[in-house]
Amino acid sequence: QLLYARAKSVKRSSQPRAEAGEGVAAANGLPCRGKVLNLDNMNPNVRRVEYAVRGAIVQRALQIDKELKEGVKKPFTEVIKANIGDAHAMGQKPITFLRQVLALCAYPDLLDDNKFPDDSKQRARRILEACGGHSIGAYSSSQGIECIRQDVARYIEKRDDGISSDPDNIYLATGASDAIVTMLKLLVCGKGRDRTGVMISIPQYPLYSAALADLAAVQINYYLDEDKCWSLDIAELKRAVTAARQHCNPRVICIINPGNPTGQVQSRQCIEDVIRFAKEEHLFLMADEVYQDNVYAEGCKFHSFKRVLFEMGPEYSTTVEMASFHSTSKCYMGECGFRGGYMEVINMDPEVKAQLTKLVSVRLCPPVPGQALLDLVVNPPQPDEPSYDKFMKERTAVLAALAEKAGLTEQIFNTVPGITCNPVQGAMYTFPRITLPQKAIDKAKVPDMFYCMKLLEEEGICLVPGSGFGQREGTFHFRMTILPPTEKLKFVLQKISDFHIRFTQEFS
Amino acid sequence: QLLYARAKSVKRSSQPRAEAGEGVAAANGLPCRGKVLNLDNMNPNVRRVEYAVRGAIVQRALQIDKELKEGVKKPFTEVIKANIGDAHAMGQKPITFLRQVLALCAYPDLLDDNKFPDDSKQRARRILEACGGHSIGAYSSSQGIECIRQDVARYIEKRDDGISSDPDNIYLATGASDAIVTMLKLLVCGKGRDRTGVMISIPQYPLYSAALADLAAVQINYYLDEDKCWSLDIAELKRAVTAARQHCNPRVICIINPGNPTGQVQSRQCIEDVIRFAKEEHLFLMADEVYQDNVYAEGCKFHSFKRVLFEMGPEYSTTVEMASFHSTSKCYMGECGFRGGYMEVINMDPEVKAQLTKLVSVRLCPPVPGQALLDLVVNPPQPDEPSYDKFMKERTAVLAALAEKAGLTEQIFNTVPGITCNPVQGAMYTFPRITLPQKAIDKAKVPDMFYCMKLLEEEGICLVPGSGFGQREGTFHFRMTILPPTEKLKFVLQKISDFHIRFTQEFS
Repeated sequence: QLLYARAKSVKRSSQPRAEAGEGVAAANGLPCRGKVLNLDNMNPNVRRVEYAVRGAIVQRALQIDKELKEGVKKPFTEVIKANIGDAHAMGQKPITFLRQVLALCAYPDLLDDNKFPDDSKQRARRILEACGGHSIGAYSSSQGIECIRQDVARYIEKRDDGISSDPDNIYLATGASDAIVTMLKLLVCGKGRDRTGVMISIPQYPLYSAALADLAAVQINYYLDEDKCWSLDIAELKRAVTAARQHCNPRVICIINPGNPTGQVQSRQCIEDVIRFAKEEHLFLMADEVYQDNVYAEGCKFHSFKRVLFEMGPEYSTTVEMASFHSTSKCYMGECGFRGGYMEVINMDPEVKAQLTKLVSVRLCPPVPGQALLDLVVNPPQPDEPSYDKFMKERTAVLAALAEKAGLTEQIFNTVPGITCNPVQGAMYTFPRITLPQKAIDKAKVPDMFYCMKLLEEEGICLVPGSGFGQREGTFHFRMTILPPTEKLKFVLQKISDFHIRFTQEFS
Repeated sequence: QLLYARAKSVKRSSQPRAEAGEGVAAANGLPCRGKVLNLDNMNPNVRRVEYAVRGAIVQRALQIDKELKEGVKKPFTEVIKANIGDAHAMGQKPITFLRQVLALCAYPDLLDDNKFPDDSKQRARRILEACGGHSIGAYSSSQGIECIRQDVARYIEKRDDGISSDPDNIYLATGASDAIVTMLKLLVCGKGRDRTGVMISIPQYPLYSAALADLAAVQINYYLDEDKCWSLDIAELKRAVTAARQHCNPRVICIINPGNPTGQVQSRQCIEDVIRFAKEEHLFLMADEVYQDNVYAEGCKFHSFKRVLFEMGPEYSTTVEMASFHSTSKCYMGECGFRGGYMEVINMDPEVKAQLTKLVSVRLCPPVPGQALLDLVVNPPQPDEPSYDKFMKERTAVLAALAEKAGLTEQIFNTVPGITCNPVQGAMYTFPRITLPQKAIDKAKVPDMFYCMKLLEEEGICLVPGSGFGQREGTFHFRMTILPPTEKLKFVLQKISDFHIRFTQEFS
């Protein structure tokens, strides 16, 4: 008889629970040993991971979807998923040029078809020539196809008014998420008080907290100032890093600009201050800039961290280590399903870069269709090319509609007593503050989750509670995308407003 | 003045080296602090990762490629990359049906085009209907598009002669690599002697050792029997697990069938024995079956672990926990660039499954074009459909050519004194044993690396040294793909044979 003393000695989680699988019949007469893999002996870091954007509320929304399809009667006929920045799912049409080139890359026989404009064919040919065997079905180099990395570098140079960018510093990735997690993974080391600490904004995009849990890194919260339009305050960064030095080794600061879920666009001055702070505190700077084209508010402008860094002179531009992230999932294209993205690393130790290249090679390469798409995004039709007019028209229409919806959202929410909403300066979300009646707060374990779940059940609108992003204690919020088509967005805003008033009355 | 005592106290690696970045000028007058991120303070697990398939030899091959383009004279005109199973890069043409449907999905305007057969349009319509906003640019559910998971389940049922498969147990992924790493991540826990041990074959596919290094899990080697055609011996598994229990907690056994890099196809009996072993030793079974269509040798047949498990009766089929992996990158399609794949989990604790679903949601979803491609692979044209004949013709041609090349490879290598080659029963590689002269062994730090590097420099042929996969001490091998077109393969085999004889003479 075999004994499995070790497997049984695995520490129990603090909350007592029935042993998973303990009841399984032992048909072979061996002692009943339960599952090899159960909740108590799985990777504890994975257990700690949370990802609200696809959490309990979204699970319930999918269930309700099914119930509706099965004919269950509800006070609504569809679930509107305003929980995630998924533009196409909300009805935004793909940009014609992008999809033409992708179709040509997938099925090159179409290159003989005179339906396709010449510039789309020329782009497809160029991408195919850079692929092994001229097929997007071949693996690319692990860092990404070289000519695409060159195009990315040229795009960055143009964006940053000529500040040079080296294709060797560009790493293509499976969406920005992949690049962010990879970068964090490189940076995490140490044990106990020496464990790497990573500063993230609160509210944050929960990819960050999830990755930090997975890596068992220390999350250092710095709070954005809701009263000042979610702006970032250097004094708060100093407070956070100083406190954190007592129990970990702060090595990284993450910034999301334009902000997710908060929609603020950082001023040039603020970015300068952050860079100075990163240098003073000896921190690696991670700039999540996936919403760089999504700036709507008057007087706001996107400033890339890299550009500001270089404009601050060699004292900074030659020393501050940085990575900037971009994606094909947001901006005007919203091509989330292709999982395209890149990061640019700056001032990275060449030996670490070699390690990074080695690390990404284990996964072989990012999806090549996503790389091809990224190439088109960074190298769009030029004014003298046949696809230019249509491309610009489509692009402008998407961004103009988003700008209109950003304004509409702020305006309507701010008419509702108990909802306060900062301007949506950029990105794709609003993160309004909601005042909840004390009775509701007392009743619910997580009041904003309770609120959002009730909204989902009663109105079929799926939002994410603020607690999934982090918020100052005692305040409550939700995140909503501004992506539904204008008329539907108006409908959603009205429904939420009505619900809020009803909710407030019910629990007063 | 700030002090960074903690950052400086990070332990040095055992080999002394110059501090990276220490020489950077401190323009601001602060003490010179070196890089935030350098080789000494980066994630030590990442440093330990190795991935030979894209290692030093391949880096050099890319360099030589560049040199050739720049006009440098070499004894050859191109580098032949036989290091990686990248079929399209070796000239294999994509399967028409797959690419037609993908083009239709990318650019649905083509659905009006009468150039495309009806079944490809019908498939594209079905996939698009299952996508958010009918666009492959929308995120899918994190586990993968539901109707594709249903198709995968039906494919598995058909493959396994009716043994049922639940779409809820299917997780689509970014290639099989992604699913394998995710599964390993779930399974790793414990510290010191309680650390999770994972049994892998030697030789192995280095994704496994890389992932285990990254997760700081304990790698437990079991050796395949080269003299018996790389077969797996249960006594060797017992030896390995028993020895490992002294210093870790063995919880997982990984099997690759058909074998990579070794090309063996396991017998039904062997699979039964492995399953019995996994049950007795209370191990989670990971079955890497990405080469399931690549079986060439007379008398060999692919048996899925799941099917054998279920045929062994409820004592096994209701208890042994298992995950099986498949991919769009291999078999007859070879669509590596799309990063499509799936895993099926069996007997997994429902609470762990919920954790798995949560974990994959952090990365949002696998690339949707890869999911669409997978759908076509598991649901190919049927005999009554217009694309059937062409599809079957293309599929059969690829597999027949691979079978021919498998035979050719074994045959030619075995004529060379000092090269011994097992039959390539399946998969895409040969892993011949090479006898190296003692002088070469004495001269080189890693003799088979030295051999492969010399071959690359002299003949422009890129192989991977056996040391990258693991081999019994004192034996030497290389891995070569059988993917080059037949005539080129003959050329490569001849070149290697000549080189081997020359090398042997040179160092005798």
